[in-house]
Amino acid sequence: MATPIDPTSLGFLLAENRNQPMHVAGLQLFEKPADAGPSFAREMYESALDTAEFAPLFLKRPVRTLGALGRWSWTEDTDFDVEHHVRHSALPEPGRIRELLELVSRLHGQMLARERPLWEAHIIEGLADGRVALYTKMHHALVDGISAMKLLQNVLTTDEDRRNMPLPFDARALRKKKVREAEAPLTEVPMDAFRTAMGLTADAAGMPAALIKTLTKGVRNEASALSFYAPKSMFNVNITGSRRFAADDWPLERIRAVSKASRTTLNDVVLAMCGGAVRNYLLELNRLPDASLVSMVPVGLKSRSAESESGGGGNAVGSVMVKLATDLADPAERLAAINASMKAGKEALESMTPNQIVAMSALGMAPSLAIPMLRLNGIIRPPFNLIISNVPGPRSVQYLNGARLTGTYPVSVPMQGMALNITCNSYADDMCFGLTGCRRTVPHLQRLLTYLDAELAALENATGVA
Amino acid sequence: MATPIDPTSLGFLLAENRNQPMHVAGLQLFEKPADAGPSFAREMYESALDTAEFAPLFLKRPVRTLGALGRWSWTEDTDFDVEHHVRHSALPEPGRIRELLELVSRLHGQMLARERPLWEAHIIEGLADGRVALYTKMHHALVDGISAMKLLQNVLTTDEDRRNMPLPFDARALRKKKVREAEAPLTEVPMDAFRTAMGLTADAAGMPAALIKTLTKGVRNEASALSFYAPKSMFNVNITGSRRFAADDWPLERIRAVSKASRTTLNDVVLAMCGGAVRNYLLELNRLPDASLVSMVPVGLKSRSAESESGGGGNAVGSVMVKLATDLADPAERLAAINASMKAGKEALESMTPNQIVAMSALGMAPSLAIPMLRLNGIIRPPFNLIISNVPGPRSVQYLNGARLTGTYPVSVPMQGMALNITCNSYADDMCFGLTGCRRTVPHLQRLLTYLDAELAALENATGVA
Repeated sequence: MATPIDPTSLGFLLAENRNQPMHVAGLQLFEKPADAGPSFAREMYESALDTAEFAPLFLKRPVRTLGALGRWSWTEDTDFDVEHHVRHSALPEPGRIRELLELVSRLHGQMLARERPLWEAHIIEGLADGRVALYTKMHHALVDGISAMKLLQNVLTTDEDRRNMPLPFDARALRKKKVREAEAPLTEVPMDAFRTAMGLTADAAGMPAALIKTLTKGVRNEASALSFYAPKSMFNVNITGSRRFAADDWPLERIRAVSKASRTTLNDVVLAMCGGAVRNYLLELNRLPDASLVSMVPVGLKSRSAESESGGGGNAVGSVMVKLATDLADPAERLAAINASMKAGKEALESMTPNQIVAMSALGMAPSLAIPMLRLNGIIRPPFNLIISNVPGPRSVQYLNGARLTGTYPVSVPMQGMALNITCNSYADDMCFGLTGCRRTVPHLQRLLTYLDAELAALENATGVA
Repeated sequence: MATPIDPTSLGFLLAENRNQPMHVAGLQLFEKPADAGPSFAREMYESALDTAEFAPLFLKRPVRTLGALGRWSWTEDTDFDVEHHVRHSALPEPGRIRELLELVSRLHGQMLARERPLWEAHIIEGLADGRVALYTKMHHALVDGISAMKLLQNVLTTDEDRRNMPLPFDARALRKKKVREAEAPLTEVPMDAFRTAMGLTADAAGMPAALIKTLTKGVRNEASALSFYAPKSMFNVNITGSRRFAADDWPLERIRAVSKASRTTLNDVVLAMCGGAVRNYLLELNRLPDASLVSMVPVGLKSRSAESESGGGGNAVGSVMVKLATDLADPAERLAAINASMKAGKEALESMTPNQIVAMSALGMAPSLAIPMLRLNGIIRPPFNLIISNVPGPRSVQYLNGARLTGTYPVSVPMQGMALNITCNSYADDMCFGLTGCRRTVPHLQRLLTYLDAELAALENATGVA
C-alpha cells in the first residue's frame, strides 16, 4: 500500500522540527444560522465523526523503513481514528477573540503526530458572541498554504439554505472538480524543475555555488537596475516553536478607496499597511533598522517564460522582493515607494533567466525549502526580512450548513530566520489578515493589529478619502 | 548536559507507539473556594506560567544520537516553553462530567511530544457545577502510575486557608522531602534485579526460555496448590491508540460495611465490585468466558524474601493473580471466592523463589515492560485478563489554594493484549475508580460504572448491610 513521497513533500517532512513545525492552517469564523440550537457546534462535530468516507489525502500517513537510510513513503492509515483528527473544543471565559487567538496560537505550535495522517480539524465553541470557529491544520507535505485555504473555502456555498454539507476532509467534497484541483497543489509548483535546475535532491547537503548565485541574484533584484540588500532585523534570527497568531479584517472598500485615490494597486495598499505597522512596531521596540525592510511577496506569474517553465498552467506563482519603505515616516510616501518597488520587482522577475524564474517560483511557493538554500541562518544579511502574501478568496458571502462565514484567516509557517509571516485572504467585502510569528522572537505580535488599523486610517487621511 | 537514560525508563520509551502511548495521568476535581471569582481557573493557569523554577524531572527530554544504533539520553530542555506544557482549556456545552471524560479520553490518547519534556498539565474549566479539573499527564519513563498520583497529591494541603501553593512541577514542591521520595520511584522498583535475573537488556530481542518459565510459573500460581490459566477474553487482543476514560467514586463507608459484614478486606470488596461489573458488561455483549477472568493485582510486598530483594525498602510492590469469579452469578459467592483467591495468591507469592518474586514485582510495577516477555500477543491463552490496582491516597480532605479536592482519579495505561485497566485511589471518605481502556476494543466502557454501582448495591444486599 506504500507509495513514494514526492521530493517536495519529503523536503517539508525533513525540514520540520520542534522549532519549525511545517503545517499550514486556516481559521474560519461562522455565525450560527437563526434556527440553530445551542448544540450547533456539537452537531457539526458529530456529523464530522459520521463521515462515511474520507478523501485519500486525509488518510495517508508517512512511514519510514527501518535503518538510518530508511526511505519515506506514504501509506494509508488502516486504523484511521477520526476522533484523533476532528476535535471539539471550547474557549475559557470570557470567550473573547483573544481567548480564541490564544487557543489557535497554542494549537499551531504543536507538531502534527507523524504516526497518523497529517491533519487536525478543531471545532471551537464558547465565543461570547455565539460564533463557532473552525481551525484546520494540515501538513505542508500535503498542501501549500494557498491550497489549504482553497480547500477550506471550496466546500462552502453561497446558498444559505443548504444543509448536510461535507467538510473539507469528506470524500464527497473532493469529488467536486474545482476542489480536486486544489488537492494536488504541489504538482503545480515548479519544484521539480527547481530541483533539477539546482541539482538538488532531498538528501543533498549543499548545492553548487553557481546555483545559489542564481537564486541570490533573483532575490537581490540584480536583474534590474534596482539591486538591493535587506537589512539585519529582529525577525531574522533562529526561532523557537512557540507561536502567536493574531487576526483581524478591514473593509475592502476602505482599502480600495485608498488604492484608487493613490493610483496604486489593492496589493500595494495592503503592503503599505504592513510596512507602516511593522515600522511602528519596531520603532516602539527601538529595533527599527535604518534601511527599509524587504518583504518577499509571492505573485502570480503571467509572463511567457514563466508559462513555459510551469507547464503552461496559469496558476504558477513567482516571488518579488519589495522594499516596505519602513525608513520613511510618511504613509503616503511609503505607499508610493512600495508601488514603485513592486513594479521594479515585477520587471526584474520578467527579465530573469528561466532558471532564475524557476528559483523565484520555488521561493514563492515553498519558502521553507528554498530559504535554507540562501543560507539564511548565520548569514550576515538576510535575503529579505519577512513574507507577506495576499491570497484571493471568495467574492461573495459563503455558508456552511446555513452558518455564515464571517471571516477566514490564513495561519502560516514562521521559519528559521523568518520569524514573522503575514498572509491576507480577501473574502466578500473584507480583507482578512492573519499574522503568524514566533512568540518569543516577535513579542506582543498582536500589537501589529493596532498598527495596521492606524496605518489604514493614516493612508485614508493622506489620500483624502477619510 | 546529557545523562544516560536508565534501562527501565528506556524500556518505556521503546515500548511506546501510536497504539500504546506510555503515559500515566491523574484527573483531579476541585471545588472553587467561596471567595473565588469567575477567573479562578485562569489565575491558576497564569500562576503556573509564572513558575520561577521547574523541578528537573519536568525539564528533561529524551534525545537520541544520530544513526540507527543511536543511544538515548536525557538532556535538559534549554528552550523550555511552559505554554506547551501547561494548558488552559474549557469544556463544550453543557459541561457535564461526560464532556470532561470525553476531553480526558482524547488527551490521554495523544502521545507526548518526544522533542519536549514528557509531560502536560491541563487546567480545565467549564463544568456546569463550577468545579475546575486538572488533568496531568506524565510519561511512564519519568514516573510510574502510583508515584504520579503521589506527586499530584503531595502538593496539596489540609489547610483550607493556604494560598500561593506550588503545583507539582514547581521546584518548590519537590523540595519537600516526602515528594522527593515520590520523584524517584523507578529506583524503588526492583527492575534492575529483574533485568539481571532475566538476563535482559533493553536491546534484548528475547530472553532465555528458562527465565520466561520463572515468570510464567509465578503468573500461573504454580508455586501454590491452586495453579490456573486465564481464559481467552475480548480484552486480550491487540489494541488501538483510541482511549476511553470513565471515572466515579463510592463512599468508603459502604465498601467498608460490606467488608466487615463479610469478613473480607476492603480490597476484596473492590475486586468483587470489578468482577461483578466486568461479568455483567461481558454478559451484555455476549462475550463472557466460561472460566473466571483473572486479574493481575499489584500488592505490597512485606515478606522477608521480598525485603531482601528490594533492598530493604517497605515500598516494594509484587503482584498476585486473582480469579475474579466472573463465572459465578451470585455476588456474595463471588466475594468469598475472590477473598480465597487473593489469599492463595499471596501465599503463592510468599513461597516463591527470589527470582520469581523479583519477576512478580516487575510485573506489578511495570507491566508494560514485563507483559511482552510473557509473549502475550499471539499467545493462545493470556496470563491474566486485566489489571486492577488499588492505590492508597490521602485520608483527609485536601485543598489547593483554598479549592477543595472533590475527587482524584488515576488514568492508566492500556496496552497490547490488555485493553482494560482499572485503578482505584482512596481519598478521604471515598474510593475513586478510574477505568482506562481502548475505545475500540472495549466499547461503551462507561457502562462499567453503572455495573460497579449495581454490584456494590448487590453486595450490600447480600451481606445485609443495605
